[in-house]
Amino acid sequence: MSNRLCFIGCFNKYDDADIVIFGAPFDGTASFRPGSRFAPQAMRVDSDGLETYSPYQNKDLTDFKICDTGDLLLPFGNTAAVLDAIRHRTQCIVDDGKRPVMLGGEHLVTLGAVRALAKAHDDLCILHFDAHADMRDEYLGEKLSHATVMRRVWDIVGDNRIFQLGIRSGERNEIAWGKDHVSTQFFDIDTLPDIINTLRGRPVYLSVDLDVIDPSEMPGTGTPEAGGISTARLIDYLQLLPNLNIAGADVVELSPPCDPNCISTMAACKVLREMLLAIG
Amino acid sequence: MSNRLCFIGCFNKYDDADIVIFGAPFDGTASFRPGSRFAPQAMRVDSDGLETYSPYQNKDLTDFKICDTGDLLLPFGNTAAVLDAIRHRTQCIVDDGKRPVMLGGEHLVTLGAVRALAKAHDDLCILHFDAHADMRDEYLGEKLSHATVMRRVWDIVGDNRIFQLGIRSGERNEIAWGKDHVSTQFFDIDTLPDIINTLRGRPVYLSVDLDVIDPSEMPGTGTPEAGGISTARLIDYLQLLPNLNIAGADVVELSPPCDPNCISTMAACKVLREMLLAIG
Amino acid sequence: MSNRLCFIGCFNKYDDADIVIFGAPFDGTASFRPGSRFAPQAMRVDSDGLETYSPYQNKDLTDFKICDTGDLLLPFGNTAAVLDAIRHRTQCIVDDGKRPVMLGGEHLVTLGAVRALAKAHDDLCILHFDAHADMRDEYLGEKLSHATVMRRVWDIVGDNRIFQLGIRSGERNEIAWGKDHVSTQFFDIDTLPDIINTLRGRPVYLSVDLDVIDPSEMPGTGTPEAGGISTARLIDYLQLLPNLNIAGADVVELSPPCDPNCISTMAACKVLREMLLAIG
Amino acid sequence: MSNRLCFIGCFNKYDDADIVIFGAPFDGTASFRPGSRFAPQAMRVDSDGLETYSPYQNKDLTDFKICDTGDLLLPFGNTAAVLDAIRHRTQCIVDDGKRPVMLGGEHLVTLGAVRALAKAHDDLCILHFDAHADMRDEYLGEKLSHATVMRRVWDIVGDNRIFQLGIRSGERNEIAWGKDHVSTQFFDIDTLPDIINTLRGRPVYLSVDLDVIDPSEMPGTGTPEAGGISTARLIDYLQLLPNLNIAGADVVELSPPCDPNCISTMAACKVLREMLLAIG
Amino acid sequence: MSNRLCFIGCFNKYDDADIVIFGAPFDGTASFRPGSRFAPQAMRVDSDGLETYSPYQNKDLTDFKICDTGDLLLPFGNTAAVLDAIRHRTQCIVDDGKRPVMLGGEHLVTLGAVRALAKAHDDLCILHFDAHADMRDEYLGEKLSHATVMRRVWDIVGDNRIFQLGIRSGERNEIAWGKDHVSTQFFDIDTLPDIINTLRGRPVYLSVDLDVIDPSEMPGTGTPEAGGISTARLIDYLQLLPNLNIAGADVVELSPPCDPNCISTMAACKVLREMLLAIG
Amino acid sequence: MSNRLCFIGCFNKYDDADIVIFGAPFDGTASFRPGSRFAPQAMRVDSDGLETYSPYQNKDLTDFKICDTGDLLLPFGNTAAVLDAIRHRTQCIVDDGKRPVMLGGEHLVTLGAVRALAKAHDDLCILHFDAHADMRDEYLGEKLSHATVMRRVWDIVGDNRIFQLGIRSGERNEIAWGKDHVSTQFFDIDTLPDIINTLRGRPVYLSVDLDVIDPSEMPGTGTPEAGGISTARLIDYLQLLPNLNIAGADVVELSPPCDPNCISTMAACKVLREMLLAIG
Repeated sequence: MSNRLCFIGCFNKYDDADIVIFGAPFDGTASFRPGSRFAPQAMRVDSDGLETYSPYQNKDLTDFKICDTGDLLLPFGNTAAVLDAIRHRTQCIVDDGKRPVMLGGEHLVTLGAVRALAKAHDDLCILHFDAHADMRDEYLGEKLSHATVMRRVWDIVGDNRIFQLGIRSGERNEIAWGKDHVSTQFFDIDTLPDIINTLRGRPVYLSVDLDVIDPSEMPGTGTPEAGGISTARLIDYLQLLPNLNIAGADVVELSPPCDPNCISTMAACKVLREMLLAIG
Repeated sequence: MSNRLCFIGCFNKYDDADIVIFGAPFDGTASFRPGSRFAPQAMRVDSDGLETYSPYQNKDLTDFKICDTGDLLLPFGNTAAVLDAIRHRTQCIVDDGKRPVMLGGEHLVTLGAVRALAKAHDDLCILHFDAHADMRDEYLGEKLSHATVMRRVWDIVGDNRIFQLGIRSGERNEIAWGKDHVSTQFFDIDTLPDIINTLRGRPVYLSVDLDVIDPSEMPGTGTPEAGGISTARLIDYLQLLPNLNIAGADVVELSPPCDPNCISTMAACKVLREMLLAIG
Repeated sequence: MSNRLCFIGCFNKYDDADIVIFGAPFDGTASFRPGSRFAPQAMRVDSDGLETYSPYQNKDLTDFKICDTGDLLLPFGNTAAVLDAIRHRTQCIVDDGKRPVMLGGEHLVTLGAVRALAKAHDDLCILHFDAHADMRDEYLGEKLSHATVMRRVWDIVGDNRIFQLGIRSGERNEIAWGKDHVSTQFFDIDTLPDIINTLRGRPVYLSVDLDVIDPSEMPGTGTPEAGGISTARLIDYLQLLPNLNIAGADVVELSPPCDPNCISTMAACKVLREMLLAIG
Repeated sequence: MSNRLCFIGCFNKYDDADIVIFGAPFDGTASFRPGSRFAPQAMRVDSDGLETYSPYQNKDLTDFKICDTGDLLLPFGNTAAVLDAIRHRTQCIVDDGKRPVMLGGEHLVTLGAVRALAKAHDDLCILHFDAHADMRDEYLGEKLSHATVMRRVWDIVGDNRIFQLGIRSGERNEIAWGKDHVSTQFFDIDTLPDIINTLRGRPVYLSVDLDVIDPSEMPGTGTPEAGGISTARLIDYLQLLPNLNIAGADVVELSPPCDPNCISTMAACKVLREMLLAIG
Repeated sequence: MSNRLCFIGCFNKYDDADIVIFGAPFDGTASFRPGSRFAPQAMRVDSDGLETYSPYQNKDLTDFKICDTGDLLLPFGNTAAVLDAIRHRTQCIVDDGKRPVMLGGEHLVTLGAVRALAKAHDDLCILHFDAHADMRDEYLGEKLSHATVMRRVWDIVGDNRIFQLGIRSGERNEIAWGKDHVSTQFFDIDTLPDIINTLRGRPVYLSVDLDVIDPSEMPGTGTPEAGGISTARLIDYLQLLPNLNIAGADVVELSPPCDPNCISTMAACKVLREMLLAIG
Repeated sequence: MSNRLCFIGCFNKYDDADIVIFGAPFDGTASFRPGSRFAPQAMRVDSDGLETYSPYQNKDLTDFKICDTGDLLLPFGNTAAVLDAIRHRTQCIVDDGKRPVMLGGEHLVTLGAVRALAKAHDDLCILHFDAHADMRDEYLGEKLSHATVMRRVWDIVGDNRIFQLGIRSGERNEIAWGKDHVSTQFFDIDTLPDIINTLRGRPVYLSVDLDVIDPSEMPGTGTPEAGGISTARLIDYLQLLPNLNIAGADVVELSPPCDPNCISTMAACKVLREMLLAIG
């Protein structure tokens, strides 16, 4: 009998852990439909409907040293302070010789984690699954937004470091800008093996915006965009991750209030399980 | 600051417009689940979560002259009067040298638009995407019904003028009747290139019943029918439309009350955007 | 046929109007459940289910000069900028010799409006209906929050200027602090006649946090608190408003995503109608 | 083991029955939110959560001879035909020496029943519980509408025959018109004892629009109107019905799609049980 | 940063605690709508929207020694084993000199707790708030059911030991049986002061079936029954509890899946807070 | 006009029927989300949105002799008694020379039917579509559970008699155990033709756990598991059934409360129609 709430199979102590999960329940710049703040807690609860064992990879979460430390307590309405809290938390985990896996929250939380990891790894690259390019320079006058997050990441890592997959939405301008600065695969993710060849040996931050998955399988997200890939396809490609040096990762933009029958949360849990098993 | 509510990027003035959008919020003959009356307004609101630019066609709605004139004010409970109001509105748009794009409402609204367009174009053909044949002669004793609409259209245009795609439901009798009078592709839509060859140069009315899409991607419709095509596939085929002479079009049978997580409305918006870009 | 979306009966032109309605769709500091950003638009849509005529006051909205100017376009994630936009908008309305009625959004929006009105009226008093005292000095380290808004208003107007009614929730500390600085009626609102006597002739800003109403009648709010008053009781007391000099007003904290059967939005519309008729 | 679906305790055979229940699942003129078509079936299903015994009246449905005959099969989209089918069904029940209790559907269905009963009873009076006056002469140009139903009933029965209770919404014009032609109690129903004295011995048709109940207890209705009476109060007053000669009755405007937690349907079932026990 | 999930303000260690909260997430005999298994966890999560301080009692949960130990892990589908696990847990708490407060789950869980407490207290009395008498001898052939729980409790404590309040539903037979064996107030709870006089000094088990509250305020319960009391009234009467010797207590029948807007869970949290403050 | 509620086209009398449908509305061991008890009734109601004719098989339900006898009345909370009632009902149907088709309820109901059919057919084989292996020996200490049902079936039929398709979830141990005792295809169902060759002529019980279908198309199930097959694919393979000797069948684990837009129930109805047409 316990009331510690963790993602399934991630009950290790912090000191013993190789991988540290934490939640970043922030959705303050969500322009269309807020709700991703509830994602990490919903994933912990619903992970109970999943097994720790994966027949896809024939691995079990209980074989790994993973610690779920719960959610950050973030100040509502202060975007800069939120990003700083995330940066700080990521830094601590890295300093302790562990790898962070962050559960969003909206996509902007990625910026906080990248700020810490880019400091630790000079040549950090970004592997980015998403429906949206997130490459605007500003959104409604704001520099810090879920719609600008990859542009802000680019401010840090620079050209030829960001690899986007599954993109199927963007403004004309941001798509045009992206052609000169980042690598983008539109509509599908099947160039991942080539990207992995390019990135082999280099430190990689993996950011999975769950709306890369089709809204039929992932309706519970802030800005669903038809025409996405299947969860099965994403899981297949995640199995290539053991070939990469993953320095940190996140899973973002699950929005439980937009997910009345919970299939999105359940799918997000499965994606997280497969990601953990692949990078563990 | 404005409270004019339009589909995204369709803010042109009526006089300047080539294409005129109007809503026909009628669901009076819906037999299973009403609610499509709320579709045009929901599409306008949720289109805000979409971009005006399409990476599929590399076109932008802002490059076209489209005017969204809002919804018709229709008398509840009087089916004949509703159809007449739609016919009249369509007629006015055609008389002004513009092309109408109607947002249903249930599928019966198509009859009102066809009545006007068939008068303007002697040899009007119908390109019809749907899960259901809609070819009954009557439904519960009524001649005017969403289940009879294509039979009533046939009363006007006659044999070999209606081309149906994606059909996967019907009564034994209506399917049998259809074999002699209309062209029907069951289960898929991949004969569209052949149909386009047949129709080249002739005036075509395009009617998209959104339930042609699989219920997983389009749950918000009155009579969901498993086994449909994907939104991505429909969008792919819509890109063939520039080869046709589209005299008018509609998008019907979205039912927002059956769409608690809004993915149907969002997908409908994307279908409409791609249709507008393809026929514009 | 029009696609201008206004609160029922508030279709006058800005220049002709005595009262100007605008929406402040901000919920960035909501700590529990966001969603109030959708309130002003939902109220406009659902007001169509109401009449312009009130049998309570035997008045009709069409007899008044009210203009609904739609929603402010607010920058997501930047609380200070949002408050400034609201302050600016309120200032403009006041400068044009009209009275503002703001539709929230969360309660923090009140601060923006009070900043403008306190500048125009030296001795501005606040009439505040709410379930929560909103008197904390900070919340999770932040000075600007829906939970601190009345403390920030007090920073401007000072002691003995804020009159709270219906309060039934607060921290021990903030309740204790309030005893020395503001007038508070707990659990009910029936001291309003006395307050009106006190305020007669002085400029009053009226702020109605809809959660003062019981959650059974107003479930669609961010932090429902059992034990509230009825809508009927609130409407009864609003009929005393003609005895006050109302300089501006707001209706806040309606959260449509928490209101699946729309009774909250409908009740909010009725409260707004009665308020407009009473202060008009 | 059976798959006959009846309202709880109403399993008698038609030939044995004194009271005959039938459903009129029509919502074709609903202007705001359709869905009342689903009411009679939902009431049958959810009545299983109720007892046949009433501690209020110390009576049990199993002591009465009541037959629930299921729903009429109504033609969608043809208002006149729907009313005629209801009229015909009511006539048959009356001709068989039984009393009809109709489950709506929207309020317009009352007109069909009154047409039959007014023929059988020269001096039929109407006892009408409602939030809305329903006294318009036309609505959007239509004579037959849920918003005009009591005006159409007045066309049949004439002045001083309609007694309205609980009214709290109407257009200025229809309220004014009503003063000269019908008896109306606004906001409450406590004049019922006086009305009963007036009506004693005369044939009465009882029409209960469930939106007379407050939306907090009856959210599942097409046009919820704040400020209504409680279910308990309505049940109290229904216990006065044994003093009246009830020729027929209906319960209308329950809308299950607007009732996600089913409390409206459950309350409607309880109202129907108490009504049946009181008039049986 | 923690992922221990507790009811607000109940973070004490077990060894330090006077009152021990535990969840009994069982709904196996629910006949109408299951879901109460989710109640204790939902209450912990949503208690975050409440304060620890009560302006009703001017007390604060942080002044008491309360430990929330989380949920029992119960075997699904084995009713006898579930009751035994509850009995065992209750026994342990009592043996440790603490008082148990159980969060259901359906009402049958009360039987498990009473089995333990009746062993510790010879003359245990039951104070029972409920809409339903729960006094059947069996339900669909089963002796153990939420509909028979108080009869099973009577099997243990015998005549004149059970005091029911707020009852408004039951079969004719069980109501008749109850007259000879238990004390029942129908429809209201205002005889509580008299009952308290009777019970003064004797050990009392308090069982609050939340459906005693009206469905408008407590829609999220398995079998909502119109005509209940208000939450405010229940809270008022709970303030009389300091006059009783409460040996244990429970709050049961909250069903979060039937509570889409969460007002029921929030009200349940408030009831629990006031109960804890009153018996603490 | 009738209130007999049957699955569409299955209105034959029991004595005339070859196939007998009955519902087993039991979800007592559901560990994650209950609700499948509501499935059979929901399927009957929503089947009205389907046709009796299948364009896939060019057959019509009205050409077959099928009787839907409604739901078993099962005792809540007594798992053993529930299974016995199902066993008894199945036995009666078989004794009357008819074939049973059971509508679950959770998957454990299959055990009751298999107990009867294994008695009638010595060499009964099981054809099992599912996402989950359901091969645990016990679950939370219980031998009878939806998670152990196929292990209990194996207790009866023994090695090499169970053929599983579509499996994509299980504990490491149960998957390992299964390798020695049953035939399992993971992730897909395309080995069905081979299995049919193996089973030709032998009596087969067909059990379709609907969660074999992807959650995007079948969200309304207790434990949705991403990565499933499409409904269209399942329907395709069901058309191979005429090559088998189907002694009985079931469709289980539809959970209508988890299906807010009803697409799962609609898809389940289509699966049932195609199954009935294929085995009829």
